Amino acid sequence: MADCEWRELAKLAVARGIHLQPGQRVCIQSPVEYSSFVHLLAEEAYQQGAQEVCVRWEEQTLSRMRSRWAPEDRLATGSPWSAGELTEIAREGGCLITVRAPYQYPEGDIPPARAALAQKTERMITQEALTLRMSGHCTWTIVLLPTVGWARKVYPQCTDEQAMERLTQTLFQCSRVEPGHTLENWREHRAHLEQYANYLTGRSFRALRYWNQQGTDLTVGLADGHRWCGGGVYKADGLPFIPNIPTEELGTAPRRDSANGTVVTTMPFLFEETLIEGMRLVFRDGVVVEYHADRGEDALRRLLETDAGGQSRRLGEVALVPISSPIAQTHTLFYNTLLDENASCHLALGNGYPFCLQGGEALSPEDMDRAGLNTGSLLHVDFMIGSPDLSVDGQNADGSWSPVFRNGTWAFSL
Amino acid sequence: MADCEWRELAKLAVARGIHLQPGQRVCIQSPVEYSSFVHLLAEEAYQQGAQEVCVRWEEQTLSRMRSRWAPEDRLATGSPWSAGELTEIAREGGCLITVRAPYQYPEGDIPPARAALAQKTERMITQEALTLRMSGHCTWTIVLLPTVGWARKVYPQCTDEQAMERLTQTLFQCSRVEPGHTLENWREHRAHLEQYANYLTGRSFRALRYWNQQGTDLTVGLADGHRWCGGGVYKADGLPFIPNIPTEELGTAPRRDSANGTVVTTMPFLFEETLIEGMRLVFRDGVVVEYHADRGEDALRRLLETDAGGQSRRLGEVALVPISSPIAQTHTLFYNTLLDENASCHLALGNGYPFCLQGGEALSPEDMDRAGLNTGSLLHVDFMIGSPDLSVDGQNADGSWSPVFRNGTWAFSL
Repeated sequence: MADCEWRELAKLAVARGIHLQPGQRVCIQSPVEYSSFVHLLAEEAYQQGAQEVCVRWEEQTLSRMRSRWAPEDRLATGSPWSAGELTEIAREGGCLITVRAPYQYPEGDIPPARAALAQKTERMITQEALTLRMSGHCTWTIVLLPTVGWARKVYPQCTDEQAMERLTQTLFQCSRVEPGHTLENWREHRAHLEQYANYLTGRSFRALRYWNQQGTDLTVGLADGHRWCGGGVYKADGLPFIPNIPTEELGTAPRRDSANGTVVTTMPFLFEETLIEGMRLVFRDGVVVEYHADRGEDALRRLLETDAGGQSRRLGEVALVPISSPIAQTHTLFYNTLLDENASCHLALGNGYPFCLQGGEALSPEDMDRAGLNTGSLLHVDFMIGSPDLSVDGQNADGSWSPVFRNGTWAFSL
Repeated sequence: MADCEWRELAKLAVARGIHLQPGQRVCIQSPVEYSSFVHLLAEEAYQQGAQEVCVRWEEQTLSRMRSRWAPEDRLATGSPWSAGELTEIAREGGCLITVRAPYQYPEGDIPPARAALAQKTERMITQEALTLRMSGHCTWTIVLLPTVGWARKVYPQCTDEQAMERLTQTLFQCSRVEPGHTLENWREHRAHLEQYANYLTGRSFRALRYWNQQGTDLTVGLADGHRWCGGGVYKADGLPFIPNIPTEELGTAPRRDSANGTVVTTMPFLFEETLIEGMRLVFRDGVVVEYHADRGEDALRRLLETDAGGQSRRLGEVALVPISSPIAQTHTLFYNTLLDENASCHLALGNGYPFCLQGGEALSPEDMDRAGLNTGSLLHVDFMIGSPDLSVDGQNADGSWSPVFRNGTWAFSL
């Protein structure tokens, strides 16, 4: 039974996630411990016509030894070879699958500055592939696998075995995995989300205003010619694909110079293995000018200081998720952004997505700049601000405001 | 207990095998399934001053999917990135460790021609690193790990568990692993073998003649200025290291144009996952002009036809191992050349080793050519010809012959 569902998840990732076309190459990034799921992905990919499946294996124990013991200049250099194939496949417009196993390892004892350096180097090494992903040059998807560490964090009252079983079933359910029906489930789900995306795009709001009792009161302009995406996004050639499974969000690109006001997070989120909780950011003309976190403030500072050009202090995404989302309805804090962001309205610091601009795949860097997109960051970090009392208004072309969200959900029906 | 011996084996591989110098980088090639032994190697390497430890993971299931399903032109291209780090570390004179787990997988169902193509491509991709290894530009060692498949092949009468235990203990014993004493054991062993190597080098034989009742009657010239190696070899800068653990052999380089006569193997050996048994080769002026195998003749043909330039039809190594070798004394056929070759006199087809020439590390390709060394092959494949009745004579400068081996062991004492 479970085997059958894992295979179904692999099929979903290949057929809808990366939307593999015959003759394409696929690069999978995965921890070595999850090779059996990687085999399922590779089998599905070859069966669906992949030319070749390459794997960039990640091995945490060795990475940690390196972070602990390698000299600093070596840590700062990294190994460009390790991302060679990933970059090559991204360049040729192939497909990338990332397998993530959150909380697989207990927290390490690496000095935070060295851990941060290692992660920054990894981002530099993979930046070209990231840019190509973000611009829709290739298709990509992220698959989350349950781990005991994660399951126990989510369900601390359960035994290891119970917690794993519960998290596994929840992941299947949130991912709409149902043997024999999964692809059809996703066709319907996507059509539903696209209806909202098309409606919001048609409204062409100039800005959004968010407010609730938690302390959020923020106005943020939307990029010129923005497009809302829901149930997946589009490759440069128009091919639809689904970067995150599950997905419940409707998202678009803000103007990088337009956020003003305060946001307060309603869920913790991870940055570089550190949980940031109770974050409060004050924006002026798009830039974070004040910041605070009840927990993880050091990590927050590193996040904001990542980009020399200041891009990590600006917004790259605004996304709306009603509290009726099935993930929100589990009333569970997953301590993982890919799930939690699909249970809550959220924003992101760092890069904006070109595919959130109309015809964005074909736009030049200058065009994107003119549209107001935040680009050139090493990061894209989501944080959740949704709440059952959240209100959102959209500003019309004439300057008037229309309700978009009331009481944490859509203020209109389609 | 076993843990302790595994750690001791890892320490031996790092301290004597690659003879790590502080500040060097290490590249480990290993099947992903053996990550826990790789962790031991990496820990030892960092503790002994390595700058960085990189791993080139091998994953058999994916490699086989690729061999089965990827289009032929892709199989022939391979992935140059995968060997980038290996080649880089070889170029900078670093250290390479190969972890091998023989018979880990049951025989696959890959069409032989496609399997051979994949292996040839792998050899092309790693050829620069191989050439750098062979020339002593970097240090390298191979560590064998026991697998159930291998253990059951060696001890078919045992249960899986018994066979694994027996093979594991035999490997530790043949590798002279003895917690707290391993490095000292190897100092003594090396000194013993070096005594023979120095003696044989001093004799400067022009040729060797082998004969026994199995049908071997072969004369082979030795390369001009050859040097015998035993208990390890030398890096270009003179640093001693041990490519194979265990090692019992005394080896040197033949002239590539000089073998005449017939050799008959006394043990089976593997080429590209095929066992070749009962092989008979006839040489004329260095080249194999007739060949036969009771089993695996197709694989033998592919072996001989590997190099367009014909190098794989010529000899690259002659090695002497007395029947008193501890590995021979186990009276066990290991179905693995790295062990079996240390129980028996053997020869190799393909590349000769520059470090088997005096000052060989500094010689130009033209010098090696002039000395008669076989170079430019994609292969180096050993095959065993030792027997309890083997005789070997060495030809002196004046053309006379002196006994070297009688009844499978040294004809002289030191």
